Amino acid sequence: MTISGLFAPIPVPFNKDESLALDKLETNLKRWLSQPLDGVVLPGSNSEAPYLSDDERLAVWQVCGQVFRDSGKIWLAGTGVERTPDTIRLTLKAAECGAAGTLVVPPHYYKKDMTHEVLLAHYRSLADASPIPVMIYNIPAFTGIDFELKTLIALAEHPNIIGMKDSSSNVLKMGQLLQARPDFIVFAGTGGALLPFLSIGAAGCISALSNVAAVPLKEIMNAFAACDLEKARRIQISIMEINFAVTGGYGVPGLKYAMDQTGFYGGPPRRPLLPVGEAARKHLDRLIADLKLA
Amino acid sequence: MTISGLFAPIPVPFNKDESLALDKLETNLKRWLSQPLDGVVLPGSNSEAPYLSDDERLAVWQVCGQVFRDSGKIWLAGTGVERTPDTIRLTLKAAECGAAGTLVVPPHYYKKDMTHEVLLAHYRSLADASPIPVMIYNIPAFTGIDFELKTLIALAEHPNIIGMKDSSSNVLKMGQLLQARPDFIVFAGTGGALLPFLSIGAAGCISALSNVAAVPLKEIMNAFAACDLEKARRIQISIMEINFAVTGGYGVPGLKYAMDQTGFYGGPPRRPLLPVGEAARKHLDRLIADLKLA
Amino acid sequence: MTISGLFAPIPVPFNKDESLALDKLETNLKRWLSQPLDGVVLPGSNSEAPYLSDDERLAVWQVCGQVFRDSGKIWLAGTGVERTPDTIRLTLKAAECGAAGTLVVPPHYYKKDMTHEVLLAHYRSLADASPIPVMIYNIPAFTGIDFELKTLIALAEHPNIIGMKDSSSNVLKMGQLLQARPDFIVFAGTGGALLPFLSIGAAGCISALSNVAAVPLKEIMNAFAACDLEKARRIQISIMEINFAVTGGYGVPGLKYAMDQTGFYGGPPRRPLLPVGEAARKHLDRLIADLKLA
Amino acid sequence: MTISGLFAPIPVPFNKDESLALDKLETNLKRWLSQPLDGVVLPGSNSEAPYLSDDERLAVWQVCGQVFRDSGKIWLAGTGVERTPDTIRLTLKAAECGAAGTLVVPPHYYKKDMTHEVLLAHYRSLADASPIPVMIYNIPAFTGIDFELKTLIALAEHPNIIGMKDSSSNVLKMGQLLQARPDFIVFAGTGGALLPFLSIGAAGCISALSNVAAVPLKEIMNAFAACDLEKARRIQISIMEINFAVTGGYGVPGLKYAMDQTGFYGGPPRRPLLPVGEAARKHLDRLIADLKLA
Repeated sequence: MTISGLFAPIPVPFNKDESLALDKLETNLKRWLSQPLDGVVLPGSNSEAPYLSDDERLAVWQVCGQVFRDSGKIWLAGTGVERTPDTIRLTLKAAECGAAGTLVVPPHYYKKDMTHEVLLAHYRSLADASPIPVMIYNIPAFTGIDFELKTLIALAEHPNIIGMKDSSSNVLKMGQLLQARPDFIVFAGTGGALLPFLSIGAAGCISALSNVAAVPLKEIMNAFAACDLEKARRIQISIMEINFAVTGGYGVPGLKYAMDQTGFYGGPPRRPLLPVGEAARKHLDRLIADLKLA
Repeated sequence: MTISGLFAPIPVPFNKDESLALDKLETNLKRWLSQPLDGVVLPGSNSEAPYLSDDERLAVWQVCGQVFRDSGKIWLAGTGVERTPDTIRLTLKAAECGAAGTLVVPPHYYKKDMTHEVLLAHYRSLADASPIPVMIYNIPAFTGIDFELKTLIALAEHPNIIGMKDSSSNVLKMGQLLQARPDFIVFAGTGGALLPFLSIGAAGCISALSNVAAVPLKEIMNAFAACDLEKARRIQISIMEINFAVTGGYGVPGLKYAMDQTGFYGGPPRRPLLPVGEAARKHLDRLIADLKLA
Repeated sequence: MTISGLFAPIPVPFNKDESLALDKLETNLKRWLSQPLDGVVLPGSNSEAPYLSDDERLAVWQVCGQVFRDSGKIWLAGTGVERTPDTIRLTLKAAECGAAGTLVVPPHYYKKDMTHEVLLAHYRSLADASPIPVMIYNIPAFTGIDFELKTLIALAEHPNIIGMKDSSSNVLKMGQLLQARPDFIVFAGTGGALLPFLSIGAAGCISALSNVAAVPLKEIMNAFAACDLEKARRIQISIMEINFAVTGGYGVPGLKYAMDQTGFYGGPPRRPLLPVGEAARKHLDRLIADLKLA
Repeated sequence: MTISGLFAPIPVPFNKDESLALDKLETNLKRWLSQPLDGVVLPGSNSEAPYLSDDERLAVWQVCGQVFRDSGKIWLAGTGVERTPDTIRLTLKAAECGAAGTLVVPPHYYKKDMTHEVLLAHYRSLADASPIPVMIYNIPAFTGIDFELKTLIALAEHPNIIGMKDSSSNVLKMGQLLQARPDFIVFAGTGGALLPFLSIGAAGCISALSNVAAVPLKEIMNAFAACDLEKARRIQISIMEINFAVTGGYGVPGLKYAMDQTGFYGGPPRRPLLPVGEAARKHLDRLIADLKLA
């Protein structure tokens, strides 16, 4: 199976008291199944992964596994935590629940100590033990770790490390990686970088925006596949502002608010994250209205 | 009770299979009690705190609480985790176990979202709920978050937020903070900054080096208190290289190796951290020998 | 006149004693005229601009003006220096010499003081005074200044500020800029970002690599224009390593060495820059050989 | 001759039309001679050095040389520019004008290329050629270059490289440097770091604040020398906010405004720098009033 296309890194819904809302998760997942998505990822940064206990992580996977069974679509787990054995343990659980692969954020507290050698050992131990394919998740804005090209090239040699998501939108590094490892699967980490990444051979994107606006992102992919570059460019440019707003701009709280406005259950973030304020809500309202008109 | 003096942010000992070695912890703690320390902190960055489960955190506190009871010395807990309610919950547990205060690293995964407002809300919620005094732990090298002066000044207004540890060794920011809040308790975050911090009114230091070399650090404090500036300077300068080696230089694995060479149980780090290599061991051997001669 | 296509930001040749080699410049320029370039830029970062006196800057423009007269191609000047009046003065000189536009690096010594307001005032003063169109040169790796989106949008309102070169290869920011100002002229700042930038509507690139390998870069542009995306992608990926080597990798000394191997006069850099060492030369030899075979 | 004590890195005065005001410079210099300063530095960052032509640099040195002759005080030149030969040439001129030493900012445009080897070669060439002692000026906030410890230790071996100014206020690095090279002369780069730097053996400070408030800074040095640590600390803490305001806070325009309020000629900065606004003026007015009361 090849992992490619458009994926939503879904938010995890919480009730007003911040408790896990598995019923809302199920409803949302069914709605996402009806969107032009190739799958979902959970939990990732947009899922408040660092705010979930291990039990909660398992619970959301079980719900996802049930909803996606026989759907023809796939889901990827987020299993990266600080310790190597914990990352392996969670990956085995995710595989049991039906994950098609895992997207693994690096350990990152001891940033300076996460050397080339340490990262190789960590990911290789995982890839050796994992029954499902491993993908690297590079998101320096959150981890403070930006994978070096040589580390990526070395990791790509492992038969069970098949690709990565680059949330740093580094077209230069990804281009060099694809020159060295043409078969490595590269995902854009944000909808704003989709077309540039496709142009150099990326397999798709895993982007916050696809939670609420899968249609235009899929249209970009389709137009690109059909060599309709002008259409692809036009749509790509039209979503830049909203794409920024629901990720870099207003973070998970912004994305959850946007979900509430587009037929999903968004709900509150967990503290310390706070809901978006008045100005952000107005800005998002305008952007969502523009999107619906388009 | 005032919290001041020399504190060791102790490593947590693991067996060869990476399991928690509570017996070794107890032995080490008793040895630290005999050193010229005013107390210990656990778990902090030197304790591989991000690699401990909640149960393990509780277990080390229980051991520490028993060993320190009636010792005349105090211990501070590290209770900062990603979620606000979890941080509060852990703080209540630490207080039950006998912690004299808590040193709280900020939530840091969503770095960009950890705004002035979010940090205020997080720490104030904690300080309101905590039965023990709260101290802020600023360590941008690991968290990617460097507290703004205005945030520190605002937090210092809370009666239960009494001080901080600044592992960024920022004498300018600490000086400004102490101008605005003369009674705030400031700790140097590394032994290399002890004398500069004392000179502007710091209460002491919480430093990796004090795990293995409390004597010279205490001598600096004593010489400073006695206005023997030349002696204080001479000792301070003499420990700069070893101080760097056991923290910034070789990280927790370096500190654990140094413990093994100085009568404590160091043992292995947990993966992904790897034990120090041959060159680092030789360097540390030489620095420790020099220290013993001095 | 529209400014678009493929531009070489040319190195300035020096004799062995580091004196300006205007004869070599003339020879090189004539050779570049025969390449599939739309023009050249001088002096930019690849020209050791910060190492040229004002008189030398004028001398190279005069040579360039003569060589390019009636050539059907254009050249852009680099006129950005630290002071606003000096930048204006140099721009007037460049225009006299025949420059079709100017690419202007921001003042950058007082980084913190180069606020939105200061940058607006600087560029607007220049654009008001300049008889030729002004383009912004964003190169944070050298200046430590990364233009904010809002600053770019505000500057783009000025009728004489027509475009920019983004050497940070930030497809997200450029996409947002093009959504806000669809007619702004955006150039990729390195050959490795050419195709991703074209995909979102860029006008071309100004890249070190085009000094020595204009052919493949022009082929990428042609294939893209002809909607032959597979060919464009294949060539783009094939040049990633050499593109990195002659810019980020080995800097101006690496580029000058590559010129010496490809029929141009490269010559030595000015000190403090030092010629590339043995390992770099071997690496570049291999990359150049591969390129010639392709 | 030993270089130590309190130095003012003086602003260069300009007339309203931004032309050099040598008469104002002379008046200011005479006033500084009456302050408890050991000397001045010009041009440095506070002198808008990057905004001076070579001729202007020479002109200010000539005035300074005349005013300081037979004054019993010394002045240090700032001679660091981008090219190695230019830096040497300017240093020879400064020596002719009577400079007691030179404080040399590193070349910094090609940040990535300013490797350990390149910096060694640059400073050693200069130190070999210079008739006056060379001091290193480390100011990463402006240059983007932060000298590595190993580079400083290697440069300190040269008999004509006698010291440095560290505007990064890095007490850890300076402590390590002084452990390795106890005779190296270290200056704090800001008044806010004076006492912490003195505590580890620094020779004094070269600080913006000493232009307008030499008295309290000298009192700190005197109290420290007399082992009156409580007085030293009290004064040090009392100047933290104004110290920040006239440097990091409001930059050269803030310092020039403060000079205008304290009996010197400050005058306008050169563009692109803009005079400070209303809020900054009010803030500075308050801080200056507090200082006079103290």
